[in-house]
Amino acid sequence: MEQAKRRSVEREFPLQARPGFLIRRLHQIHTALFFEECQDFDVTPVQFSVLSALKERGALDQASLAREIGIDRTNVADVVRRLAARGLVSRTPDRKDLRLRLARLTDRGVQLLASMEEAARRAHERTIAPLGESERALFVKALGRLVDANNAIGRAPLRYMEAGKG
Amino acid sequence: MEQAKRRSVEREFPLQARPGFLIRRLHQIHTALFFEECQDFDVTPVQFSVLSALKERGALDQASLAREIGIDRTNVADVVRRLAARGLVSRTPDRKDLRLRLARLTDRGVQLLASMEEAARRAHERTIAPLGESERALFVKALGRLVDANNAIGRAPLRYMEAGKG
Repeated sequence: MEQAKRRSVEREFPLQARPGFLIRRLHQIHTALFFEECQDFDVTPVQFSVLSALKERGALDQASLAREIGIDRTNVADVVRRLAARGLVSRTPDRKDLRLRLARLTDRGVQLLASMEEAARRAHERTIAPLGESERALFVKALGRLVDANNAIGRAPLRYMEAGKG
Repeated sequence: MEQAKRRSVEREFPLQARPGFLIRRLHQIHTALFFEECQDFDVTPVQFSVLSALKERGALDQASLAREIGIDRTNVADVVRRLAARGLVSRTPDRKDLRLRLARLTDRGVQLLASMEEAARRAHERTIAPLGESERALFVKALGRLVDANNAIGRAPLRYMEAGKG
């Protein structure tokens, strides 16, 4: 009886009905679309988020940047270093707190961002294109609510890194 | 004028309105919830998907397994090797095609899967818990449609790995 019950529970919860499984797949799909659309720019989705956040918010220290785009600080440090090495971002001490370094877009970073914006937008739009127009709006709204509601979750660096390794 | 137009386009497309950005955040959130709920089992979300697919489908060769859970073959080979090392999966030659090796759950794998099922289900449910009940159903349905519609996309191994590195 116990086993029969367990089996019936499993039947109701196949891979294709698990939100987490579908979200991982959709994340992979968006990533592939992003690289397809933006291949000329040699910028990853996370790098693009960092550049966009600096464009929106101006200069940011790494902790604020990590909060802004929802990745851990070690990862942010890594991304900022790579972008700086390419001359897309500059890092200068914060005059208000010399222990902090502020990252900001260079002119070259501003230019790159502007030149890739349409391609990136296409990648985002293609990710949800199979839905009807009103469904798309509802879907993005629901995504936003879920991210907001869980905003403090999902930045544990070690665990997220492990997950990436499968 | 051209610049003013570009600025206005950018204003309408902040990070928080980009589907791909929100999907990446939600993927991170689900991963963190999964590890929180399932920490006693030392199984990653991808490993859990592989175990679940073998439970649902019986023995599978690695190419089929890769298709089933939507990750690339190199990654599948890696995951299967780790699961085999823990005695959760066995690998035997396919009698119909000796070049192929079939992975299947061992008794221990079946037991582990059964013992962690409730915890994993909680992680999946918590990921979408902030939505109302009818919204949750619509959201998962939309996710499923997007994954189905783009099912061939998003398995380019190199690119996905790069994305993981930020």
